[in-house]
Amino acid sequence: MEVNLQAELKDLQDSMAGLQAQNQAMMERLEATENELKVHKATPKVAFAASLGGNGMLKTTNGNVDLIYREVLTNVGGAYNAETGEFSAPVRGVYYIRFTANGPTNYPLSAVLYKNNNKIQLIVHEQPSGEGSDTASNGAALLLEKDDKLKMVLWHNTQIWDNSNHHSTFSGFLVFPM
Amino acid sequence: MEVNLQAELKDLQDSMAGLQAQNQAMMERLEATENELKVHKATPKVAFAASLGGNGMLKTTNGNVDLIYREVLTNVGGAYNAETGEFSAPVRGVYYIRFTANGPTNYPLSAVLYKNNNKIQLIVHEQPSGEGSDTASNGAALLLEKDDKLKMVLWHNTQIWDNSNHHSTFSGFLVFPM
Amino acid sequence: MEVNLQAELKDLQDSMAGLQAQNQAMMERLEATENELKVHKATPKVAFAASLGGNGMLKTTNGNVDLIYREVLTNVGGAYNAETGEFSAPVRGVYYIRFTANGPTNYPLSAVLYKNNNKIQLIVHEQPSGEGSDTASNGAALLLEKDDKLKMVLWHNTQIWDNSNHHSTFSGFLVFPM
Repeated sequence: MEVNLQAELKDLQDSMAGLQAQNQAMMERLEATENELKVHKATPKVAFAASLGGNGMLKTTNGNVDLIYREVLTNVGGAYNAETGEFSAPVRGVYYIRFTANGPTNYPLSAVLYKNNNKIQLIVHEQPSGEGSDTASNGAALLLEKDDKLKMVLWHNTQIWDNSNHHSTFSGFLVFPM
Repeated sequence: MEVNLQAELKDLQDSMAGLQAQNQAMMERLEATENELKVHKATPKVAFAASLGGNGMLKTTNGNVDLIYREVLTNVGGAYNAETGEFSAPVRGVYYIRFTANGPTNYPLSAVLYKNNNKIQLIVHEQPSGEGSDTASNGAALLLEKDDKLKMVLWHNTQIWDNSNHHSTFSGFLVFPM
Repeated sequence: MEVNLQAELKDLQDSMAGLQAQNQAMMERLEATENELKVHKATPKVAFAASLGGNGMLKTTNGNVDLIYREVLTNVGGAYNAETGEFSAPVRGVYYIRFTANGPTNYPLSAVLYKNNNKIQLIVHEQPSGEGSDTASNGAALLLEKDDKLKMVLWHNTQIWDNSNHHSTFSGFLVFPM
């Protein structure tokens, strides 16, 4: 009888060792899966949209001027600063960035997207063409490093216009981190 | 001998209790992971694009008119209604919304994006400027509540044009849910 | 005494069978979770942006011409070919595609987005309107099959302009796979 018991005990010990190894393996895979999900969940939600707002006409006669889009429509993640007009990339990644500029056509319009103050990314330019108004948009998927700064600049001797209906806007969002 | 067996049994019982506790913990973590993935997979796929299509000229002389983009290019998720011209947000989240409006320049053009019938989000406006045609675009990342409605309106005394090549379009997609 | 041992052994065997079944079930769920994550991680990162660049004026007098945006700003995933001007969709899915075209207003401008060489997706067209310049943009969320090709074409008897500041651009990114 005791021999039987010993054999059964041995079986149980083997099964136990098997389960322990299996649990160890499962735990490692579970942890790997949890970590991958954590990386995925760490992707920040970043989106902004702002309008020059009820400023009326802005005309530069004394050099370039930073455009401050004071009327904030969207600022998820808080990466757009309505005091400075600057967007600061919170993580490295591809962002879609776009803008629309509107102005009367009696004077040129040059609205320019800069990265880190000196690198031109995109421009819209309209020459004077008599009566009327012009609307010009540009946009692109841009790879930004963490803390890269974007801002819009109105070049010297040009003009832009907006009112509370949001004619002249600046907007973007994170497409994916890298 | 029996003492030995009893000690081995006791060891086995302890190991078994350890494994049971470990399995309980793993099961809880697995369930948490499954639930997070479920949340992620619950993100709906939402994207639409539509064009006024072969309607030729549309001119308002009797008040504002809703723009019905009848020619649907894309409608993943079915949130755009080509009968009413309305986009209804299926979940709370940030959506990128944009439009292009084209018209001759002998008359004004005011195409306006409204939320929930009365709240202006974005506009393009062109004044008459003699011969020629004008194309104007605007777009922004907008935070919408579930069931928020977006539509485009052509304001009184203005005009817009399209043909089957898709000059005048309305498009958007969910960037991320919130 | 031995009866006791036998009863305890029986309990252990039952617990062991329970744990083994539980482990089997957990392993299956873990594998399902891993596979779902794998599908998620398989989503490629695709985004491109390019500009005609310092080519100056391009004017067609002998039929349509493919627009080759030679100055590449972004090409994550390598789906845009700067030699041919063609974007090839690496996976089935919804892509946001947009372009801006700029030209003087003394001549027409027709810049057209084609799919697979013959299917017009979007257009911007400006008629001559005297002095000045015009900027026109269009864009849409488009459902593309794997290997669908997109390119921009400048139609016969029209013109487009760019310089190193990126007036005339072509850009897009994968919104979600399907």
